[in-house]
Amino acid sequence: MNAPQPKVKAPKNAISPTRAEDYAEWYQKVVRAADMAEMSGVRGCMVIKPWGYGAWELMQRDLDARFKATGHENCYFPLFIPLSYFQKEAEHVDGFAKEMAVVTHHRLTMKDGKLVPDGELEEPLVVRPTSETVIGEAMSKWIKSYRDLPLLLNQWANVVRWEMRPRILLRTAEFLWQEGHTAHETYDDAMAETRRMHDVYRDFAQEVLALPVVCGEKTPNERFPGAVNTFTIEAMMQDGRALQAGTSHYLGQNFSKSIGIQFQTREGQLEHVHTTSWGVSTRLLGAILMTHADDDGMRMPPRIAPHQVVITPIMRDDADRAKVMAYCESLRDALTAQVFAGEKIRVKLDTRDIAGADKKWEWIKKGAPLLLEIGLRDVDGGKICVTRRDQMASGKRFIERDVFVGSVVAELAAAQQALFDQALAFQKARTVTNITARDALVAYFTKDADNTFASGQGFVRAKWAGDMDSLKVIEELGVTIRCIPFDQDGQTGTCVLTGKPATQDVIFARAY
Amino acid sequence: MNAPQPKVKAPKNAISPTRAEDYAEWYQKVVRAADMAEMSGVRGCMVIKPWGYGAWELMQRDLDARFKATGHENCYFPLFIPLSYFQKEAEHVDGFAKEMAVVTHHRLTMKDGKLVPDGELEEPLVVRPTSETVIGEAMSKWIKSYRDLPLLLNQWANVVRWEMRPRILLRTAEFLWQEGHTAHETYDDAMAETRRMHDVYRDFAQEVLALPVVCGEKTPNERFPGAVNTFTIEAMMQDGRALQAGTSHYLGQNFSKSIGIQFQTREGQLEHVHTTSWGVSTRLLGAILMTHADDDGMRMPPRIAPHQVVITPIMRDDADRAKVMAYCESLRDALTAQVFAGEKIRVKLDTRDIAGADKKWEWIKKGAPLLLEIGLRDVDGGKICVTRRDQMASGKRFIERDVFVGSVVAELAAAQQALFDQALAFQKARTVTNITARDALVAYFTKDADNTFASGQGFVRAKWAGDMDSLKVIEELGVTIRCIPFDQDGQTGTCVLTGKPATQDVIFARAY
Repeated sequence: MNAPQPKVKAPKNAISPTRAEDYAEWYQKVVRAADMAEMSGVRGCMVIKPWGYGAWELMQRDLDARFKATGHENCYFPLFIPLSYFQKEAEHVDGFAKEMAVVTHHRLTMKDGKLVPDGELEEPLVVRPTSETVIGEAMSKWIKSYRDLPLLLNQWANVVRWEMRPRILLRTAEFLWQEGHTAHETYDDAMAETRRMHDVYRDFAQEVLALPVVCGEKTPNERFPGAVNTFTIEAMMQDGRALQAGTSHYLGQNFSKSIGIQFQTREGQLEHVHTTSWGVSTRLLGAILMTHADDDGMRMPPRIAPHQVVITPIMRDDADRAKVMAYCESLRDALTAQVFAGEKIRVKLDTRDIAGADKKWEWIKKGAPLLLEIGLRDVDGGKICVTRRDQMASGKRFIERDVFVGSVVAELAAAQQALFDQALAFQKARTVTNITARDALVAYFTKDADNTFASGQGFVRAKWAGDMDSLKVIEELGVTIRCIPFDQDGQTGTCVLTGKPATQDVIFARAY
Repeated sequence: MNAPQPKVKAPKNAISPTRAEDYAEWYQKVVRAADMAEMSGVRGCMVIKPWGYGAWELMQRDLDARFKATGHENCYFPLFIPLSYFQKEAEHVDGFAKEMAVVTHHRLTMKDGKLVPDGELEEPLVVRPTSETVIGEAMSKWIKSYRDLPLLLNQWANVVRWEMRPRILLRTAEFLWQEGHTAHETYDDAMAETRRMHDVYRDFAQEVLALPVVCGEKTPNERFPGAVNTFTIEAMMQDGRALQAGTSHYLGQNFSKSIGIQFQTREGQLEHVHTTSWGVSTRLLGAILMTHADDDGMRMPPRIAPHQVVITPIMRDDADRAKVMAYCESLRDALTAQVFAGEKIRVKLDTRDIAGADKKWEWIKKGAPLLLEIGLRDVDGGKICVTRRDQMASGKRFIERDVFVGSVVAELAAAQQALFDQALAFQKARTVTNITARDALVAYFTKDADNTFASGQGFVRAKWAGDMDSLKVIEELGVTIRCIPFDQDGQTGTCVLTGKPATQDVIFARAY
C-alpha cells in the first residue's frame, strides 16, 4: 500500500507497524498513539479520551448548528425500549434482534455472599439500538393535524448494538450518535427532507472533516431495516476500503402504519405520516483516523482539532523561563484573537514539566495542525519555529512573529484543504472504472499469492443490472455494493456481473 | 400557601389546580402546560421535549464553559459497568444496589412466536447509576506519577437509578447529568477542588437559574455512598420543601484504595490519589419549574429561555399580512443583533397559522420572558405591545419600537433579577430561625387538622449537637437535615433536638 503523502522518518516515535506493513494493526496503534480512545474493561465498550472527545464535541457543535439552521429541534427520548415496541415493525426487529442488550432486572441483592440480579421486570427492556419505535410512539400522541407537520426532531444520545467483533471507534457495543427523526404530510416533503439531511452530511464531511465522499443510494439489501430508501455518504480509507460515514432514510409509511401515527389532512381525511431518520456517530472519529493519520500518528483537520496551534516553550534554566514564557503567552493571546472558520483559534500553551522533544512528538502523534517551538534564541530573534503537521517532510520553518500571527488563519485553511486534497487524490487514484467483466471484478478483489492486492484495493465503479442474485460471487469475497451514486452518466452498457444490458453505475468495495 | 408574586387571573388558561389548592398536582400540570417534558410509555422514563431540552442545552453550555475555565476536560466512559467493579467499594454498592437496571442478555430470539432474551452474559452488566468505579478503573491505568495529577475529567451522560415512585424531572429512572471526576496528589488539593466545584454550582444556580441556594455540608447519613464529605446547594421550592440542586464530593482515598489508583509522589513514594466527584442533572429543570412557575404556567429565567423574546404577528387578512410581517421581521433582526449575557438575543417569530390568543397563552404557559404582539395598528403607530412574563399583573405596555429595541437587554436583565429576588424573598420569608425546642420543631413540621401547615412549610435553621439518634423523631415526619451551612455564627446555643450545648447551625426541611 502506498502512503498518500511524504513523511519524516523518526523511527523512535513513528507508529509501528506502518500502514503498508499491517494496516489493521497500524490502526489500533495509531488510535492509542493519538490518545483519542481506548477499549475499556467492559466488553466491546470504549473510553473516548479528551483528545478524541474534544474532536467529537467540535463535530457536534458544527452539525448541531446545521440541524438547527434546517429547522430541527433537539429533544431526548428514553434509553430503554419495551420489547413490544420493536415487534410492531417486522423488518426492523429482524435487523436488530441479534445485537440487542436486554435489561431483565432492576436491582441487585446479596445472596450467599454474592450480588445477583433481582427484581425481574414484567417485560424486558431493550437498550436502544436506534429510536424509531420509541420516538414513533411519542409522535403518535403529538401529531393530530397537518398543522403539527413537519415535526423535525433530533437527539444526541448513546446507543448499543452488541458487536461480536468490536473494533475501536468503528464498531463498538456502545457508541455516541445523533439521530434525526421527522414526520411529514407527503412523500415529496419526506423525500426532500431525506435528501436535505444527506446533503448536510456530505457538506459537513467534506468541509469540516476533510473527508471526500461518494454520495448515493443503497441497494435494497443494504438499506436500514424498515426503510424504503437509504442514502449514504461513503468515504475511502487508506487501505481502499469503504466506510459508511452517514445515512439518511426515507421510511415511507412503514413505521407510521405499524405504530399508528396519523394526522388530519388539509382536506379533513385521516392519513399516516411519512417519516425519515438520519444519523452519524462517533465512528466518524475512526473515519478521520483511517483517512488522515500517517505513519507518524494522527493529522487532525483544523476545523475539529481541539487545539489548532500548540506552543511548546523550550527552557534550559530558570533564567530563560521568564523571558520565554512571556513571549509565549503574548503569542498565545495574539493567536487566540484570530478567527478561523468563524471561531477564535484554539491555542494550547503546553507548560508541562517534561522534555521538549517528548512534548513535540506527543502533539505530532495527536495531530495538532500547527506546532510551535519557542526557545530563547527565537525570542531574541523575534521568530517562531513552525512545523505544519501535514507538511512534516518540509521540516521546520522559522518565521517572523508578526508574519506568523498574520498568516495563521491562512495556514490553518491551507492545512484543512491539503488534507482534503490528499484524501480526494487517493480516492480518485484508487477508484477503478475500466472493469467490465465478472472475472476481472473478482480478480481485482482477490489477493495474490503474496497476500496483497495487485493494484491495491479500492472502489470499482461499474454498470450493474440490479439482479440481487448476481451479487453472491462478490459477497463471498466480502465485497458489497456501497451505493448507486447520484451522479450517473445515463449511458447503457453491460452489467459487470451478468453481462446483461445495464444503465446504472454502482460502487463495489470492501467496507468497514 | 401564598403565591410569591401577583398574577393575572385567566381562568380559561391558567393551571388548575393552583399551587395553593394542590401543589403536587399543580406541578404535574405545569410541566405539561409548559411543554417541557412528559412521562413516556417506558416505566419511570421521561421524554424531554424541545422547550425543556432547549433550556437544558443552555444550562449545559454555560456549565461546560465554567468546567473548562477551571481546567476540566470532557471525555466519555461506558454506559455498562461490570458487577465486579461495584463490589470493590462496599458503601458505594450498598447505596445503589436497590436501584440498578441490570443487563443479562445480549440478543433476542424468536421462540414459539415470541421474542425472548437470549445470549446470557457471563457477568451481568449494570447500567451506570454513577461512574466512580468505571472511571476509577481507567484512572488506575492512566495515572503513574504526580506529573499526571491533577487529572480533571467530566462527562455529560445519561444514568439510570430505578425509582419506585418516579416524579417527572425530579426523580426518573433515567436522567441526564454531568459527572466530574478528578484525582489529586493531596487532601488539600482534592478538598480545594470539591469546594471550587461547589462554588461553580452555587454561582451557576444563582446567576443563570435565578435559584437562590443555601450552601453547606451534608451530615454523614446524607452523604454520597462512599464519600468522606458531601457539599450541597439546597434550593427552596414554592411549597417550602428543599431540593438538592447540586452536590460535590470529597471521596478521600476510599475509591483509590478499593480500585488501586496509585501514583509516584515527588519524593518517589507510591501513594493513593485523593478523588472527588460532582454532578448536576436534568432535575434542575424540575427545580426551576417548582421555583419560578406560577398559576399561569412557567416563567423561564431569560438566561436559559430557548426563546427570550417571542413575536406574535396579529393579522386579520392578507392585506395586513405583508405590512405586519415586514415590520415583525425587521424587529426580529434588530432584536437578534442585541447581546444579553454574552450571547445574541434569541428571538422567535411565531408565524404559525393558529389564533393569536392561543399562541400568546401557549408562550405564557411556556414562560417566554418577553411576549410581543404586533397588529396593523402597532405597525402604523411604530409601536410594540409588550408583556413581560414576570409582570403579568402590570398587563401590556405599548412602547415605541426604537425605545423597545434599545431597552430589551435591560428588560431581560430585570426579568432575570426579578425572578431571583422573588425566590430569595420567599426563601427568607419561609426560613424560621426562632425554633429552639424539639416540640416546637415537631409542631412546625406537623400538619393541622385541616391538613395544612400552620405557618406554611419551610426551612428551620437551628442548633444541633450532632447526635445521629436524635434525628429519629423528625425522620418519622419525613424531615431531614439538608445541610450544615457554611456560614455559621459560631455562637454556642442549645441543640433543638437534645437540649445539649451546640454551636453548629443546621437546616431542617422536607425534601424532594
